[in-house]
Amino acid sequence: MQKGLIIVHTGNGKGKTTAALGLLMRAAGQNFKCVMLQFIKRKGSHYGEHMSAAKLGIELLSLGDGFTWDTKNPEQDRRTAAEAWKICAEKINSGVYDLVVLDEINVALSLGMLDVENVAEVLRQKSPELHVVLTGRDAPEAIIEIADLVTEMREIKHPFNQGIYAQRGIEF
Amino acid sequence: MQKGLIIVHTGNGKGKTTAALGLLMRAAGQNFKCVMLQFIKRKGSHYGEHMSAAKLGIELLSLGDGFTWDTKNPEQDRRTAAEAWKICAEKINSGVYDLVVLDEINVALSLGMLDVENVAEVLRQKSPELHVVLTGRDAPEAIIEIADLVTEMREIKHPFNQGIYAQRGIEF
Repeated sequence: MQKGLIIVHTGNGKGKTTAALGLLMRAAGQNFKCVMLQFIKRKGSHYGEHMSAAKLGIELLSLGDGFTWDTKNPEQDRRTAAEAWKICAEKINSGVYDLVVLDEINVALSLGMLDVENVAEVLRQKSPELHVVLTGRDAPEAIIEIADLVTEMREIKHPFNQGIYAQRGIEF
Repeated sequence: MQKGLIIVHTGNGKGKTTAALGLLMRAAGQNFKCVMLQFIKRKGSHYGEHMSAAKLGIELLSLGDGFTWDTKNPEQDRRTAAEAWKICAEKINSGVYDLVVLDEINVALSLGMLDVENVAEVLRQKSPELHVVLTGRDAPEAIIEIADLVTEMREIKHPFNQGIYAQRGIEF
Protein backbone atom coordinates (compact mmCIF):
# COMPACT_ATOMS: atom_id res chain seq x y z
CA MET A 1 0.00 0.00 0.00
CA GLN A 2 1.27 3.43 -0.79
CA LYS A 3 1.69 6.05 1.90
CA GLY A 4 -0.28 9.14 0.93
CA LEU A 5 1.77 12.25 1.61
CA ILE A 6 0.69 15.68 2.81
CA ILE A 7 2.89 18.05 0.83
CA VAL A 8 3.18 21.81 1.39
CA HIS A 9 4.66 24.38 -1.02
CA THR A 10 5.02 27.72 0.74
CA GLY A 11 7.26 30.81 0.77
CA ASN A 12 7.36 34.13 -1.08
CA GLY A 13 8.96 32.79 -4.29
CA LYS A 14 7.67 31.48 -7.59
CA GLY A 15 7.09 27.80 -8.22
CA LYS A 16 4.55 26.80 -5.56
CA THR A 17 1.63 26.27 -7.94
CA THR A 18 4.00 25.37 -10.79
CA ALA A 19 5.57 22.53 -8.79
CA ALA A 20 2.06 21.31 -7.92
CA LEU A 21 1.35 21.22 -11.68
CA GLY A 22 4.52 19.16 -12.10
CA LEU A 23 3.30 16.70 -9.46
CA LEU A 24 -0.05 16.47 -11.25
CA MET A 25 1.72 15.82 -14.55
CA ARG A 26 3.83 13.04 -13.02
CA ALA A 27 0.87 11.50 -11.18
CA ALA A 28 -1.40 11.63 -14.24
CA GLY A 29 1.34 9.82 -16.17
CA GLN A 30 1.07 7.02 -13.59
CA ASN A 31 -2.70 6.93 -14.22
CA PHE A 32 -3.48 8.53 -10.88
CA LYS A 33 -6.86 10.24 -10.61
CA CYS A 34 -6.06 13.90 -9.90
CA VAL A 35 -7.82 17.18 -9.16
CA MET A 36 -6.56 20.72 -8.51
CA LEU A 37 -8.92 22.99 -6.57
CA GLN A 38 -7.96 26.63 -7.01
CA PHE A 39 -8.74 29.04 -4.15
CA ILE A 40 -7.61 32.14 -6.00
CA LYS A 41 -9.21 33.41 -9.14
CA ARG A 42 -6.58 34.06 -11.79
CA LYS A 43 -6.73 36.50 -14.67
CA GLY A 44 -8.06 35.30 -18.03
CA SER A 45 -9.49 31.90 -18.76
CA HIS A 46 -7.32 30.10 -21.32
CA TYR A 47 -4.28 29.14 -19.37
CA GLY A 48 -1.72 26.75 -20.68
CA GLU A 49 -2.27 24.61 -17.62
CA HIS A 50 -5.97 24.19 -18.45
CA MET A 51 -5.20 23.03 -21.97
CA SER A 52 -2.61 20.51 -20.81
CA ALA A 53 -4.66 19.34 -17.81
CA ALA A 54 -7.55 18.54 -20.14
CA LYS A 55 -5.23 16.47 -22.34
CA LEU A 56 -3.94 14.57 -19.29
CA GLY A 57 -7.35 13.97 -17.74
CA ILE A 58 -6.57 16.19 -14.74
CA GLU A 59 -9.54 18.07 -13.25
CA LEU A 60 -8.93 21.79 -12.59
CA LEU A 61 -11.69 23.39 -10.57
CA SER A 62 -11.72 27.12 -9.81
CA LEU A 63 -13.27 27.70 -6.40
CA GLY A 64 -12.65 31.40 -6.76
CA ASP A 65 -14.83 31.78 -9.83
CA GLY A 66 -17.03 34.76 -9.11
CA PHE A 67 -15.20 35.95 -6.01
CA THR A 68 -11.77 37.39 -5.40
CA TRP A 69 -11.42 37.35 -1.59
CA ASP A 70 -11.17 41.12 -1.43
CA THR A 71 -14.78 42.04 -0.78
CA LYS A 72 -13.76 44.04 2.32
CA ASN A 73 -16.54 42.07 3.98
CA PRO A 74 -14.83 39.49 6.21
CA GLU A 75 -18.13 37.87 7.10
CA GLN A 76 -18.89 37.24 3.41
CA ASP A 77 -15.33 36.08 2.71
CA ARG A 78 -15.56 33.52 5.49
CA ARG A 79 -18.88 32.22 4.15
CA THR A 80 -17.39 31.95 0.65
CA ALA A 81 -14.29 30.21 2.00
CA ALA A 82 -16.44 27.78 3.98
CA GLU A 83 -18.35 26.85 0.81
CA ALA A 84 -15.08 26.40 -1.10
CA TRP A 85 -13.68 24.23 1.69
CA LYS A 86 -16.85 22.11 1.71
CA ILE A 87 -16.14 21.21 -1.93
CA CYS A 88 -12.50 20.40 -1.07
CA ALA A 89 -13.48 18.17 1.85
CA GLU A 90 -15.97 16.34 -0.37
CA LYS A 91 -13.24 15.71 -2.95
CA ILE A 92 -10.79 14.56 -0.26
CA ASN A 93 -13.37 12.19 1.26
CA SER A 94 -14.87 10.98 -2.03
CA GLY A 95 -12.51 8.02 -2.37
CA VAL A 96 -12.23 8.90 -6.06
CA TYR A 97 -8.82 10.57 -6.11
CA ASP A 98 -5.18 9.60 -5.64
CA LEU A 99 -3.95 13.21 -5.58
CA VAL A 100 -5.82 16.36 -4.51
CA VAL A 101 -4.12 19.77 -4.87
CA LEU A 102 -5.52 22.63 -2.77
CA ASP A 103 -3.99 25.53 -4.67
CA GLU A 104 -3.41 28.74 -2.67
CA ILE A 105 -5.36 27.39 0.30
CA ASN A 106 -2.56 28.58 2.62
CA VAL A 107 -3.49 32.16 1.79
CA ALA A 108 -7.13 31.63 2.83
CA LEU A 109 -5.87 29.93 6.00
CA SER A 110 -3.34 32.58 6.95
CA LEU A 111 -5.87 35.38 6.38
CA GLY A 112 -8.23 33.62 8.80
CA MET A 113 -10.88 33.03 6.15
CA LEU A 114 -10.73 29.29 6.81
CA ASP A 115 -10.46 27.57 10.16
CA VAL A 116 -7.05 25.87 10.36
CA GLU A 117 -8.17 23.26 12.88
CA ASN A 118 -11.09 22.25 10.69
CA VAL A 119 -8.80 21.79 7.66
CA ALA A 120 -6.15 19.96 9.70
CA GLU A 121 -8.78 17.59 11.07
CA VAL A 122 -10.00 16.61 7.57
CA LEU A 123 -6.37 16.03 6.53
CA ARG A 124 -5.68 13.89 9.59
CA GLN A 125 -8.76 11.76 8.82
CA LYS A 126 -8.08 11.38 5.10
CA SER A 127 -7.54 8.01 3.44
CA PRO A 128 -3.95 6.90 4.22
CA GLU A 129 -3.30 6.36 0.50
CA LEU A 130 -4.40 9.81 -0.69
CA HIS A 131 -1.77 12.45 -1.51
CA VAL A 132 -2.77 16.05 -0.73
CA VAL A 133 -0.78 19.11 -1.78
CA LEU A 134 -1.38 22.54 -0.18
CA THR A 135 0.15 25.59 -1.85
CA GLY A 136 0.41 29.28 -1.01
CA ARG A 137 2.58 31.59 1.05
CA ASP A 138 2.37 31.75 4.86
CA ALA A 139 1.37 28.13 5.47
CA PRO A 140 0.17 28.02 9.10
CA GLU A 141 2.22 26.13 11.67
CA ALA A 142 -0.60 23.62 12.31
CA ILE A 143 -0.48 22.60 8.63
CA ILE A 144 3.31 22.31 8.58
CA GLU A 145 3.06 20.13 11.65
CA ILE A 146 0.86 17.48 10.00
CA ALA A 147 2.68 17.67 6.65
CA ASP A 148 5.14 14.99 5.54
CA LEU A 149 7.03 17.18 3.09
CA VAL A 150 7.35 20.96 3.26
CA THR A 151 9.28 23.07 0.78
CA GLU A 152 9.76 26.81 1.00
CA MET A 153 10.09 28.54 -2.36
CA ARG A 154 12.29 31.58 -1.69
CA GLU A 155 12.57 34.47 -4.10
CA ILE A 156 16.22 35.16 -4.90
CA LYS A 157 15.66 37.24 -8.04
CA HIS A 158 12.38 38.19 -9.70
CA PRO A 159 11.91 39.64 -13.19
CA PHE A 160 8.98 41.85 -12.15
CA ASN A 161 11.49 43.77 -10.03
CA GLN A 162 13.25 44.49 -13.30
CA GLY A 163 10.12 45.68 -15.10
CA ILE A 164 9.59 42.52 -17.13
CA TYR A 165 5.94 41.55 -17.34
CA ALA A 166 4.34 38.11 -17.04
CA GLN A 167 5.11 35.93 -20.04
CA ARG A 168 2.57 33.72 -21.80
CA GLY A 169 3.35 30.03 -21.35
CA ILE A 170 5.50 30.70 -18.29
CA GLU A 171 3.29 32.58 -15.86
CA PHE A 172 -0.05 31.51 -17.30
CA MET B 1 7.71 40.14 -28.96
CA GLN B 2 8.05 38.07 -25.86
CA LYS B 3 11.02 38.43 -23.56
CA GLY B 4 12.61 35.03 -23.11
CA LEU B 5 13.50 34.48 -19.47
CA ILE B 6 16.46 32.68 -17.93
CA ILE B 7 14.95 30.90 -14.93
CA VAL B 8 16.90 29.10 -12.19
CA HIS B 9 15.50 26.59 -9.66
CA THR B 10 18.10 25.88 -7.03
CA GLY B 11 18.39 24.97 -3.32
CA ASN B 12 18.43 21.78 -1.27
CA GLY B 13 14.66 21.21 -1.28
CA LYS B 14 12.24 19.28 -3.48
CA GLY B 15 10.42 20.86 -6.39
CA LYS B 16 13.22 22.08 -8.64
CA THR B 17 12.64 19.57 -11.44
CA THR B 18 8.95 19.30 -10.56
CA ALA B 19 8.43 23.05 -11.01
CA ALA B 20 10.25 22.81 -14.35
CA LEU B 21 7.76 20.09 -15.34
CA GLY B 22 4.96 22.48 -14.35
CA LEU B 23 6.45 25.18 -16.59
CA LEU B 24 6.66 22.67 -19.46
CA MET B 25 3.02 21.69 -18.89
CA ARG B 26 1.90 25.33 -18.97
CA ALA B 27 4.06 26.15 -22.00
CA ALA B 28 2.93 23.07 -23.94
CA GLY B 29 -0.66 24.13 -23.27
CA GLN B 30 0.16 27.40 -25.03
CA ASN B 31 1.51 25.39 -27.97
CA PHE B 32 5.10 26.25 -27.17
CA LYS B 33 7.72 23.89 -28.55
CA CYS B 34 9.49 22.47 -25.49
CA VAL B 35 12.35 20.17 -24.58
CA MET B 36 13.79 18.99 -21.26
CA LEU B 37 17.41 17.81 -21.34
CA GLN B 38 18.23 15.72 -18.29
CA PHE B 39 21.81 15.76 -16.98
CA ILE B 40 21.23 13.14 -14.31
CA LYS B 41 20.19 9.59 -15.03
CA ARG B 42 17.22 8.61 -12.89
CA LYS B 43 16.23 5.15 -11.73
CA GLY B 44 13.89 3.10 -13.93
CA SER B 45 12.52 4.15 -17.28
CA HIS B 46 8.74 4.48 -17.09
CA TYR B 47 8.23 7.65 -15.16
CA GLY B 48 4.94 9.43 -14.97
CA GLU B 49 6.58 12.50 -16.46
CA HIS B 50 7.59 10.59 -19.58
CA MET B 51 4.06 9.33 -20.16
CA SER B 52 2.55 12.80 -19.72
CA ALA B 53 5.28 14.55 -21.70
CA ALA B 54 4.61 12.24 -24.65
CA LYS B 55 0.90 13.12 -24.50
CA LEU B 56 1.70 16.83 -24.45
CA GLY B 57 4.28 16.71 -27.24
CA ILE B 58 7.13 17.67 -24.89
CA GLU B 59 10.53 16.17 -25.73
CA LEU B 60 12.39 14.61 -22.77
CA LEU B 61 15.96 13.72 -23.55
CA SER B 62 18.19 11.92 -21.08
CA LEU B 63 21.78 13.11 -21.49
CA GLY B 64 22.84 10.87 -18.64
CA ASP B 65 21.78 7.67 -20.36
CA GLY B 66 24.72 5.36 -20.00
CA PHE B 67 26.67 7.45 -17.51
CA THR B 68 26.06 8.49 -13.94
CA TRP B 69 28.73 11.15 -13.27
CA ASP B 70 30.40 9.02 -10.62
CA THR B 71 33.07 7.29 -12.65
CA LYS B 72 35.77 8.56 -10.26
CA ASN B 73 37.49 9.62 -13.45
CA PRO B 74 37.19 13.42 -13.60
CA GLU B 75 38.75 13.53 -17.05
CA GLN B 76 36.12 11.18 -18.42
CA ASP B 77 33.32 13.01 -16.60
CA ARG B 78 34.38 16.30 -18.14
CA ARG B 79 34.43 14.76 -21.62
CA THR B 80 30.97 13.28 -21.06
CA ALA B 81 29.69 16.61 -19.74
CA ALA B 82 31.15 18.43 -22.71
CA GLU B 83 29.31 16.12 -25.09
CA ALA B 84 26.07 16.58 -23.14
CA TRP B 85 26.49 20.35 -23.22
CA LYS B 86 27.11 20.27 -26.97
CA ILE B 87 23.65 18.74 -27.42
CA CYS B 88 22.16 21.40 -25.13
CA ALA B 89 23.84 24.24 -27.01
CA GLU B 90 22.57 22.82 -30.31
CA LYS B 91 19.02 22.73 -28.94
CA ILE B 92 19.33 26.28 -27.59
CA ASN B 93 20.68 27.59 -30.90
CA SER B 94 18.43 25.52 -33.16
CA GLY B 95 15.69 28.14 -33.38
CA VAL B 96 13.17 25.32 -32.97
CA TYR B 97 12.20 25.77 -29.32
CA ASP B 98 10.33 28.27 -27.18
CA LEU B 99 11.38 26.65 -23.91
CA VAL B 100 14.51 24.59 -23.13
CA VAL B 101 14.90 23.02 -19.67
CA LEU B 102 18.43 22.03 -18.62
CA ASP B 103 17.53 19.67 -15.79
CA GLU B 104 20.17 19.28 -13.04
CA ILE B 105 22.76 21.19 -15.06
CA ASN B 106 23.64 23.21 -11.93
CA VAL B 107 25.07 20.06 -10.39
CA ALA B 108 27.40 19.46 -13.35
CA LEU B 109 28.41 23.13 -13.19
CA SER B 110 29.04 23.24 -9.44
CA LEU B 111 31.09 20.03 -9.59
CA GLY B 112 33.30 21.66 -12.23
CA MET B 113 32.36 19.11 -14.89
CA LEU B 114 31.11 21.90 -17.14
CA ASP B 115 32.74 25.28 -17.71
CA VAL B 116 30.45 27.96 -16.24
CA GLU B 117 31.73 30.71 -18.53
CA ASN B 118 31.08 28.61 -21.61
CA VAL B 119 27.49 27.92 -20.52
CA ALA B 120 26.90 31.55 -19.51
CA GLU B 121 28.15 32.74 -22.90
CA VAL B 122 25.71 30.51 -24.82
CA LEU B 123 22.89 31.78 -22.58
CA ARG B 124 23.89 35.41 -23.15
CA GLN B 125 23.90 34.83 -26.92
CA LYS B 126 20.60 32.93 -27.07
CA SER B 127 17.60 34.16 -29.03
CA PRO B 128 15.91 36.93 -27.00
CA GLU B 129 12.56 35.11 -27.24
CA LEU B 130 13.75 31.75 -25.94
CA HIS B 131 13.02 30.75 -22.33
CA VAL B 132 15.70 28.61 -20.65
CA VAL B 133 15.28 26.93 -17.26
CA LEU B 134 18.28 25.61 -15.30
CA THR B 135 17.63 23.33 -12.34
CA GLY B 136 19.76 21.74 -9.64
CA ARG B 137 21.25 22.62 -6.29
CA ASP B 138 24.28 24.91 -5.93
CA ALA B 139 23.63 27.09 -8.98
CA PRO B 140 26.89 29.00 -9.57
CA GLU B 141 26.97 32.75 -8.99
CA ALA B 142 27.73 33.45 -12.68
CA ILE B 143 24.47 31.74 -13.65
CA ILE B 144 22.43 33.56 -11.00
CA GLU B 145 23.89 36.79 -12.29
CA ILE B 146 22.57 36.37 -15.85
CA ALA B 147 19.24 34.87 -14.72
CA ASP B 148 16.00 36.87 -14.74
CA LEU B 149 14.21 34.75 -12.16
CA VAL B 150 15.85 32.68 -9.43
CA THR B 151 13.98 30.62 -6.86
CA GLU B 152 15.57 28.68 -4.03
CA MET B 153 13.66 25.58 -3.01
CA ARG B 154 14.41 25.13 0.69
CA GLU B 155 13.75 21.91 2.53
CA ILE B 156 11.66 22.57 5.63
CA LYS B 157 10.51 18.99 6.25
CA HIS B 158 11.30 15.86 4.24
CA PRO B 159 9.55 12.49 4.45
CA PHE B 160 12.74 10.49 3.84
CA ASN B 161 13.91 11.81 7.21
CA GLN B 162 10.90 10.02 8.64
CA GLY B 163 11.63 6.71 6.91
CA ILE B 164 8.99 7.10 4.21
CA TYR B 165 10.22 5.97 0.82
CA ALA B 166 9.71 7.53 -2.60
CA GLN B 167 6.12 7.25 -3.77
CA ARG B 168 5.08 6.32 -7.30
CA GLY B 169 3.38 9.23 -9.10
CA ILE B 170 4.92 11.78 -6.72
CA GLU B 171 8.66 11.21 -6.89
CA PHE B 172 8.77 9.45 -10.24
